[in-house]
Amino acid sequence: MTGQRVAPETGPPASPLAPGTRRPGGRTARTRAAVRDAVLTGLVEHGYPGLTIDYVAEHSGVHKTTLYRRWGNLEGLLADALDMAGEDSWTPPDTGSLQGDLRALAHMTAASFEDPAAAAAPTAFIAAAFHSERAAEALNAFYAVRFARCEVMVARAVSRHELDRRTDAGALVRAVVSPLFFRLFITREPMEEKLADRAADAALAAARAGVFDTPAEPA
Amino acid sequence: MTGQRVAPETGPPASPLAPGTRRPGGRTARTRAAVRDAVLTGLVEHGYPGLTIDYVAEHSGVHKTTLYRRWGNLEGLLADALDMAGEDSWTPPDTGSLQGDLRALAHMTAASFEDPAAAAAPTAFIAAAFHSERAAEALNAFYAVRFARCEVMVARAVSRHELDRRTDAGALVRAVVSPLFFRLFITREPMEEKLADRAADAALAAARAGVFDTPAEPA
Repeated sequence: MTGQRVAPETGPPASPLAPGTRRPGGRTARTRAAVRDAVLTGLVEHGYPGLTIDYVAEHSGVHKTTLYRRWGNLEGLLADALDMAGEDSWTPPDTGSLQGDLRALAHMTAASFEDPAAAAAPTAFIAAAFHSERAAEALNAFYAVRFARCEVMVARAVSRHELDRRTDAGALVRAVVSPLFFRLFITREPMEEKLADRAADAALAAARAGVFDTPAEPA
Repeated sequence: MTGQRVAPETGPPASPLAPGTRRPGGRTARTRAAVRDAVLTGLVEHGYPGLTIDYVAEHSGVHKTTLYRRWGNLEGLLADALDMAGEDSWTPPDTGSLQGDLRALAHMTAASFEDPAAAAAPTAFIAAAFHSERAAEALNAFYAVRFARCEVMVARAVSRHELDRRTDAGALVRAVVSPLFFRLFITREPMEEKLADRAADAALAAARAGVFDTPAEPA
C-alpha cells in the first residue's frame, strides 16, 4: 500500500533478479538465441528433469548433432541459457535515495515472480539447480553479476552520506531480496504488497545499525 | 568466528528448520514410519521426479497396493513424510536473550544444511515443492508450524522488555533465516560462519527499528 512502485529510469522495467527472461536486442548468433529460447520453453513446459535434447532440437530447429557438438549435453545448454540471461544491460534503480532504490529493487523482484508466465523460466532455473551442478554454478554466476551491478546503489548512498562507507554492499543488496525469495521458494507463502517495502526497510535498518559493516582491516 | 555456537537446552540439537529429518521416539504405526523412511531415502537417492512407488514398496517392505490404498499416490506419500517431519517436539532456543536466541536459531539452521547427509532429505523436500503442488502445500504447512513455535522467543523478549510488543514475531523469525536459505538454494553461495550471526543481528536491528511492527489497529 505504498503507492510508489518506482519505475526505474534505466534498464528493462522488470525481472532484474529473474534469470531466464528474454534479453532485449542482442547480436549473438541466431542459433544460440533459438536454442536458448527452446531451452527456456522446455524448462517451463517440462522442468529440468523433463527437458530433452530432442525437445530442444525440435523447438529450435537446430540439429541434435549440432547441439551435442556445441553444447555437449543438456547441462551445457542450460548453463548457456543462463549465461545469456545475464548478458543484458540491466542496471539497478536510481531513485535519488537509498530507501527508494532498495524498495524499487524489492518491488521489481517481487513483481518479476508475480506473473506466472514471466516467472516460469526463472523458477525453472532455480529448480534445475537442485538437479544439476552446472545449473547451480550458472545460477551462482548469474546472481554474482546481478548483485555486483546492484552495488552502485550503495556507492551512491555512501557518496550522498546516507550510509557508512564500510557497508558491505553485497550483503545489503542480498538482504533486501532474501525474504522475498524465501517466501516464494522455501516456505511457499503468498507474496503481499507490503512485503517488498518491509524487506527493503529491514535491510536498510540493519545497514544503518552497522550490521553489514566490513571490518576496518579486512583479512 | 563467534566462538559461541549456542547449544540449545531444549529440543533436539539440530535441524529445527530442516524438514525430513528423523523425529525422535514416536508412537505412530511402524508401517507409516517405514514408508516415511523409504520416501526420504528415495528422495535423497533420486530426487522427487525420480522417486517411484516401486522404490518405496521395495525399501519399506509395504506392498504397493497398501501404499496406493493408504496414500493414494507419490504426492500423498511425500506430503505424509513431511507431515511426520513436523510432528516432533522441537522447541526453539532459550538462551536468556533475544540476540542469543536468534543467533542460535540461525546457527542451528545453517548447521542443519552443512552436513550433506543431514541436508539431503530437507533439500529434497524443498526441491520437490517445485514439481508437486502437494509437496509445496506440505512444505508451507511444515514451516507455518515451525515459525509459530519460534514466536515464543519473541514473546519472551517482549516480557523482558527487549522488544516492542507490536513486533510481528513471524516476520522477525522468518527474517533471521531468509538470508541463509537464499544463499543455500537461490544464489548457491557458500555458507560462512559469520553469516548466521549477521543474519540474526540484521533481523534484530530491523525489529528494534520498528520495521516489523504491526499496525496499531490491525485490519
